[in-house]
Amino acid sequence: MTASAQGVQTTSAKSSASHPERVFNFSAGPATMPESVLREVQDEMLCYPGAGASIMEISHRDKLFVDVLHDAESTIRELLKISDDYSVMFMQGGATLQFSAIPANLLRGSGKRAQYIQTGSWGKKAVKEAKKEGDVDLLYDAAESNYDHVPSASDLACPDDAAYMYYCSNETIQGVQFQSEPNCPDSVPLVSDASSDFLCRPLPIEKYGLLYACAQKNAGPAGVSVVIMRKDLLEKADPNIPGYLHFKNHHDNDSEWNTPPTFAIYVLGKVARWLRDDMGGLEKMESINREKSQQLYSVIDSSNGFYRGHAQTDCRSLMNVTFNLPSDDLTAKFISEAGEHKLAALKGHRSVGGIRASIYNAMPREGVNALASFMNDFASKNS
Amino acid sequence: MTASAQGVQTTSAKSSASHPERVFNFSAGPATMPESVLREVQDEMLCYPGAGASIMEISHRDKLFVDVLHDAESTIRELLKISDDYSVMFMQGGATLQFSAIPANLLRGSGKRAQYIQTGSWGKKAVKEAKKEGDVDLLYDAAESNYDHVPSASDLACPDDAAYMYYCSNETIQGVQFQSEPNCPDSVPLVSDASSDFLCRPLPIEKYGLLYACAQKNAGPAGVSVVIMRKDLLEKADPNIPGYLHFKNHHDNDSEWNTPPTFAIYVLGKVARWLRDDMGGLEKMESINREKSQQLYSVIDSSNGFYRGHAQTDCRSLMNVTFNLPSDDLTAKFISEAGEHKLAALKGHRSVGGIRASIYNAMPREGVNALASFMNDFASKNS
Repeated sequence: MTASAQGVQTTSAKSSASHPERVFNFSAGPATMPESVLREVQDEMLCYPGAGASIMEISHRDKLFVDVLHDAESTIRELLKISDDYSVMFMQGGATLQFSAIPANLLRGSGKRAQYIQTGSWGKKAVKEAKKEGDVDLLYDAAESNYDHVPSASDLACPDDAAYMYYCSNETIQGVQFQSEPNCPDSVPLVSDASSDFLCRPLPIEKYGLLYACAQKNAGPAGVSVVIMRKDLLEKADPNIPGYLHFKNHHDNDSEWNTPPTFAIYVLGKVARWLRDDMGGLEKMESINREKSQQLYSVIDSSNGFYRGHAQTDCRSLMNVTFNLPSDDLTAKFISEAGEHKLAALKGHRSVGGIRASIYNAMPREGVNALASFMNDFASKNS
Repeated sequence: MTASAQGVQTTSAKSSASHPERVFNFSAGPATMPESVLREVQDEMLCYPGAGASIMEISHRDKLFVDVLHDAESTIRELLKISDDYSVMFMQGGATLQFSAIPANLLRGSGKRAQYIQTGSWGKKAVKEAKKEGDVDLLYDAAESNYDHVPSASDLACPDDAAYMYYCSNETIQGVQFQSEPNCPDSVPLVSDASSDFLCRPLPIEKYGLLYACAQKNAGPAGVSVVIMRKDLLEKADPNIPGYLHFKNHHDNDSEWNTPPTFAIYVLGKVARWLRDDMGGLEKMESINREKSQQLYSVIDSSNGFYRGHAQTDCRSLMNVTFNLPSDDLTAKFISEAGEHKLAALKGHRSVGGIRASIYNAMPREGVNALASFMNDFASKNS
């Protein structure tokens, strides 16, 4: 990240004047966070209120930290309207650990087959790990079109006796997103990797068996994942799977089976509160996310083919706007000149190329405005 | 943690005046950290130099973060004089994940038996997980004396063909520490859980096959573990073990097989630098740790039996000083009155009871002085 310094504004009502060196950071993850949250963390760094120490320095069993953890959980429950039928757990190891934990808990020894929908890079990785734990079918694979779309409901025929049906709701690299849950038989738990669109919109949690997200895209720093799991599924696992992978250990001990990543949970809780209190909750956040993403997609669509979106239009992501320019030289020039306008971390993933603008909840409208202006200007100068 | 506020001093030459609300924090982990490190983290919270963003907000692939990771690794290599025969990896999941990862990599499918030395609570947990992965022998078990000692070399007879020999160098809960490595045949990899005494003294790394530590006791915040592994052992694992547990994935990708816990690694690196630059390295740190712990053990030994140390004298820990008082009432009174003197988090673990004073590297001498004075005073008033 090399963009130069100018004052920026955040969307947070609480934030004071922005730090003069901060840029608009379009990183796909770890990603931009609400500046007001960073300021709170900064203020409390040496002394968390009442602790006489940093939140990093106190025991995870200290009531002050236990309250932080419970508050993070209850704020997430409130945002997503999660009922008591579901456990909400905090774990380490990112989405990658979940790629193994999910089949270890729900597939190994079940005598059933798991059904995977593969719509991008993260789904592919999940399939690879699942195959180590049991029988896996590819219910859908979008590889032939270079993962530029998600299936329509009619493309899916999940058997009634599947161990579970798995999909990734938003593929960060490709910038494709399911607009709603794929059809899944009532008898089959629906499992979602929501890492890169968690908390970007309301979700009907009751449709899911398990939904998880690493925090570092839309919900906090790297090092913590949120796992939302229907409680009846907790009982399914063979107790001989590796202990850290066993969801029931985490559920039964309120995410303190072992020392949790205390600082990451503390920041995650602050981001959730910011979303509820400053942004007004998930309905409002979705509306803002639609406006922000539409602004960039409009620039793409009105560029007379100068910008070419990677995702098909009906499954464009609210979070990751992916597009290509006419040549690699122009792509490099775009990234370089964007940096001079304090627009940072726009390079696309090597497997897709081009540009990826990640505009998670914490990306302020001003950042999207600035990028849209820059894109229009760049296209008119270089067409 | 409820102790009240007064000015304190850290041992760091760099630190400015201490925050007035900070207490002396004897938590066993997460634990006290160098105040100068917390101040640096605070200063950089909104903008890591050159990033235009917090270190939490930038990609783990960004050169700025990759440099942070490499610097943390090289500082640890320098402190412990680790040769290129060893990999140094950063992982998530704490020691608990290692309890499974180690036997998954080195025992599963090996046709061998693993030999475990059980000298406290953490060793017991490790044994439980290892048994899920293969055949385990208890080479030594100190349960009968309530884990108040470690074996002498003559108590151990590890077979030459063991998969590995495992021990926990410092049992945090019981406060017992190996004074040097247990005898281990050359043909057998020695594996150590050094979570609670990592970086407290120099170590002959060449004696180890694998040594690991979660950071949150002596090396940083919760959420990252350091794994030091002889490179030839990386090749031993069945590739079908869960990917996150497979050390080779982490080694081959320079601890970026998946998104690492970036903020935790950043803080860990700062703690390592503090240890090298401000404290003068591990020889000096060990000398200070010996002085600090001896000061408290002297109070115990000269208290005419008022304080009774848990650990036998020849295996007392430099890090966790555990002792009992004549009654539970006096223990409660001790903890309460200590809190009034800004001496916090002294309650012993429920399995041992009494008091535990964890005096990791970052506990300043002033904190130990204050605790020793308080102990003498409390004993004279209550004997």
